Amino acid sequence: MALYQDNDLYINNSLTRKKEKFEALNAPNVGMYVCGPTVYSDVHLGNCRSFITFDMVYRYLSHLGYNVRYVRNITDAGHLENDADEGEDKISKKARLEQLEPMEIVQKYTLGFHEVMAQFNAHPPSIEPTATGHIVEQIEMIEQIIKNGWAYVENGSVYFDVEKYNATNDYGKLSGRKIEDLISGTRELDAQSEKRNPLDFAIWKKASPSHIQRWPSPWGVGFPGWHLECSVMSTKYLGQQFDIHGGGMDLKFPHHECEIAQNKASNGTDAVRYWMHGNMLTLNGQRMSKSTGNTLLPGELFSGDTDKLTKGYAPSVARFFMMQAHYGSQLDFSDEALLAAEKGYNRLMQAVDKLSSLEAGEGTSDFDVEAWQKQCYAAMNDDFNSPILISHLFEAVRFINGSDKNSGLSQTHLNLLNNTLTAFVFDILGLEKASESKQSDKLDEVMKMLITMRTKARADKDWALSDQIRDQLASVGIQLKDGADGTSYTLV
Amino acid sequence: MALYQDNDLYINNSLTRKKEKFEALNAPNVGMYVCGPTVYSDVHLGNCRSFITFDMVYRYLSHLGYNVRYVRNITDAGHLENDADEGEDKISKKARLEQLEPMEIVQKYTLGFHEVMAQFNAHPPSIEPTATGHIVEQIEMIEQIIKNGWAYVENGSVYFDVEKYNATNDYGKLSGRKIEDLISGTRELDAQSEKRNPLDFAIWKKASPSHIQRWPSPWGVGFPGWHLECSVMSTKYLGQQFDIHGGGMDLKFPHHECEIAQNKASNGTDAVRYWMHGNMLTLNGQRMSKSTGNTLLPGELFSGDTDKLTKGYAPSVARFFMMQAHYGSQLDFSDEALLAAEKGYNRLMQAVDKLSSLEAGEGTSDFDVEAWQKQCYAAMNDDFNSPILISHLFEAVRFINGSDKNSGLSQTHLNLLNNTLTAFVFDILGLEKASESKQSDKLDEVMKMLITMRTKARADKDWALSDQIRDQLASVGIQLKDGADGTSYTLV
Repeated sequence: MALYQDNDLYINNSLTRKKEKFEALNAPNVGMYVCGPTVYSDVHLGNCRSFITFDMVYRYLSHLGYNVRYVRNITDAGHLENDADEGEDKISKKARLEQLEPMEIVQKYTLGFHEVMAQFNAHPPSIEPTATGHIVEQIEMIEQIIKNGWAYVENGSVYFDVEKYNATNDYGKLSGRKIEDLISGTRELDAQSEKRNPLDFAIWKKASPSHIQRWPSPWGVGFPGWHLECSVMSTKYLGQQFDIHGGGMDLKFPHHECEIAQNKASNGTDAVRYWMHGNMLTLNGQRMSKSTGNTLLPGELFSGDTDKLTKGYAPSVARFFMMQAHYGSQLDFSDEALLAAEKGYNRLMQAVDKLSSLEAGEGTSDFDVEAWQKQCYAAMNDDFNSPILISHLFEAVRFINGSDKNSGLSQTHLNLLNNTLTAFVFDILGLEKASESKQSDKLDEVMKMLITMRTKARADKDWALSDQIRDQLASVGIQLKDGADGTSYTLV
Repeated sequence: MALYQDNDLYINNSLTRKKEKFEALNAPNVGMYVCGPTVYSDVHLGNCRSFITFDMVYRYLSHLGYNVRYVRNITDAGHLENDADEGEDKISKKARLEQLEPMEIVQKYTLGFHEVMAQFNAHPPSIEPTATGHIVEQIEMIEQIIKNGWAYVENGSVYFDVEKYNATNDYGKLSGRKIEDLISGTRELDAQSEKRNPLDFAIWKKASPSHIQRWPSPWGVGFPGWHLECSVMSTKYLGQQFDIHGGGMDLKFPHHECEIAQNKASNGTDAVRYWMHGNMLTLNGQRMSKSTGNTLLPGELFSGDTDKLTKGYAPSVARFFMMQAHYGSQLDFSDEALLAAEKGYNRLMQAVDKLSSLEAGEGTSDFDVEAWQKQCYAAMNDDFNSPILISHLFEAVRFINGSDKNSGLSQTHLNLLNNTLTAFVFDILGLEKASESKQSDKLDEVMKMLITMRTKARADKDWALSDQIRDQLASVGIQLKDGADGTSYTLV
C-alpha cells in the first residue's frame, strides 16, 4: 500500500480559501504546474522561496508515493514591463541594454536560475517548457477562444473580453476582487486604446516594428500575451484538468485570474483543482525592492558579500530557515534570524550524525518513536506545515543528544527513528550536509595544521614524526614540497 | 589591438578540404553553430569529444579577442531512427518505452547532457535553441523552399527535390559523394513511396496517428524533418551567412549536406564559410557500438565502474587525453593511454603550481619565453593543433622542473611564462585542477590519519599532542567525537 493511502493530506486551496482534503484526479499520478521565472535578470531571493516551497511540495508528494509530473515553465518571451499589455518586453529590453540577442539573455539567466536552484538543492521539474517553444499551441488556444466568442481581434492584436466572460463566470474569484471595483479602479481608456474595456487583456499582441521576438499568426506578426503561455503549457502536459497549480502570491492577480479565464474560455473547464500560493519574503522588515536597494541576491546570501549580512550562509542553512516558516506566511530575512537558523541547522545535522552511531537497547526508553513519526506526518499532512514538522524533528534531536551510546530503543524503533529522521531532513525538507566546497576549505585548513605540526617536529628533530606525516600524506596522494618559503602541498 | 589581428588562424575547411585563413565576416563578431545532441539517451563519449573540440575552438576564438556567438542546438523532436525519413521518432520511442511524455525524456537527457558538459568543464553555448522552440520558423523556411521550387508536397509531407537541386547545384560537395553513386546505391523506391526519387528527403513529415509530437501546418498535422532545424536555427541566430559550422564527422552526410541544400534553396546563399568536423573515438581499437557492448559512458569513465578500465579518470584527465590528439584525427580510448595521460596531466599541473613560487633572476636563463610563446600560438593557429601545443607546454614543464627557486628569468619573462602557460592550460585547453570531490575524498583520508595520530598520542599518554590536535581541528570547524567504536568527526 502506498504511503498516500495512509495519509490524508490537506491543502489550503487559494481558490476556496479552505483547507481541503487532497484527492488526486488519477492517483498515483499527480499533475503539478508552477509558474517559473521570466529570465531577464538574476532570480530574486523571493522567487527562490516560492520555488523552494514547491520543491518541498513535490518532494513530499513523491515521498507519499505519488508519481508527480511537475511542470515549471521558463518565460522567455511576451512578458511586458509592469506585467501590463503595453510597454517593452522585459527580455527584449534587457537584450537592447546588454547588446545581446534576446535568446542570449534567455540562455544567460536560465543558466543562472538553474545554478541557484541546484545550490538550494531543488529538484529540476519533470518538464521545463518555454513560451517560445509553444507558439503554435498558443495560437491554437487563441483561435479556440475567439471561436468560442470570448475574445476579439483589433488591429492585429487579440483581446480577451473580460466583461463578457464575467457576465456568466466569476472573474476575480481567485484573487477575491470584484469586477466593479476593478473597473472603478482603472483609468479611463484613452481614445487610442484598442480595448473595448480597460480590464480586457491581450492574448496576442501585434509586434511594433522594433519588437525583436515576433512570429507570424492569423492576425499578423506579433507575440503571445504573457498570461496565455501558462494556460497552454499546463494543459498541454497535464490535461484539461489537473491537480495542483502553484506560484507566488504576487501572481494571483492578474496572472492566475487570467489563466482561469483562458482555460474556461478555451475548453469550458476549471483546469486547476488546488491553487497554492507562496507568501513573500521581506528583508529586515521591509519589502524587497530594487529601487530602494533593499534586496539580497542568492549569491550575496551565500558569500556574505553584502552590507545586509555579517557573513555568508550555506544554501542549506537558508533553506532550513525558509522551512522554519509556513509557506503561506510572510518571512523576514535578517542576519540575526539566519544566525539562529544556522545554529539550529548545525544541531540537527550533528544529531543525524550521532544517531547513526547509536545502538539498540532493551526498549526501555520512553521516547515513543511511533507516536513521534505520526506527528511528523501529521504536520506535513496539514498543508505542508514545515515549521511544526521541524519542531517535532527537534524532539528527536533532544532525545538523540540526551542519549547514551545505548539508545534504550529496540532495534526496530531505532531503525524507524533513523529512517524517519533522514527521510524528513534530506528527502522531504531537502536539506544537505556541509557542502563539498566547505570540505575543500576544510582540507586546506587541516593541511596547514599538519604542515605546522611537521615543521615543529623537524624543529624538535623528531624525524620519525616528520617522516611519518610526509609518508602517510604521500600514501593518500598528497605530496608535500619543502621550499625556502615553507612547505606546500599538491594533490596528485 | 586585439590578439586576433596578430594571429593568422588557419582552419581546415571540410568543404574545400584545404586549410584556409580564417577571415571573420564581421570581426570582432564570430558566429559559430554546432550540432547538439538528440536528447533521447545518455550522451556518448564520442559525442563528448566533438563537443569538447568545439568548446576548445570557442575558447581559443574568445581568447583571440573575438566576440563569439556560439549556438548549439538541442534536438528534441523530429529525429527518426537510423537518421532516415521512415521509422519511429527517437524521442517518442524512448517515451513509449519509459512510459513518459516525450518532453520528460527531453528534460531528463538534456539535464544529463548539461551535467556531463559541466564535468568536462565545457562552457555552455551563448544560445541553446530547441527544435520544438522553432516550429513556426521551420514552417516558414519550408514555405520558402516550396515557393522557390525546390520541394514538393505529397500526402501531407513535404520532400526536398534532390535531383532538381543537383541539376544546378552540387549535392554531395561537402561529403564528396557523387549523386550518381548515391542513386545507384539506393534501393528502388517501393510502390508506396511518396518520394519522386529515393534521394529526396523529408522537410515536413505527416504524423501517423500514433506519433506523439505533432503540430498543425499548411500541409496538415505533422512534424519537421530533422535536417531542417539546424538550417533554421543557425540562420535565425547567426544570419544567412555565418562563419563556422561544426559537428561530428558522422553528420557530414546526409545531415550537413542537406543543411547546405536547404539553405541554398531557401535563401540562395551558401550559409557556412568554414565547415569543421571532429573525428571519431574508438575504444580499445574498435568502433564504439552499443550492439557489440564496446561502449563507455562518461559516468563509467569518471567512476571506473566498467570492465573496460582499471580505475576512474577525472574529467580533466580525459579532456587532456583528448587534447593530445588533433580533433581531425581518430583517437583510441584505452586504459593504458588514459594512465599515461593522467601522468602527463599531473606533471603539467605540478609544474603550474611550482611556477607560481619561482622567482625572477638576472635573465641568464637560456629558456626563450618569447619564442616559446610564439610557438604555442603558432600551434593553435595551425587548425587548432592542440597536440603540438601540448608538446610546447611540456618544454615549459621541463624548464620549470629543472629550475631552482631562482628561475634565471627576468621578471617580465617570468610573468609572461606564467600568464601564457595558465592561459593555454586553463582558458584555452579548458583543463581544471584536481576536482572538489577529489578534495573531499582527500579530507577524509587526512582526517583518518590525524585521528590515528591522536589515538596513538593518547595511548602514549601524550596529552599535549592529543589535545592540540582536537583543539586545532575545533578551531577550523571540525569536531572530533570519541566513542566506543573509535573517533569520528563532523564538519560544523
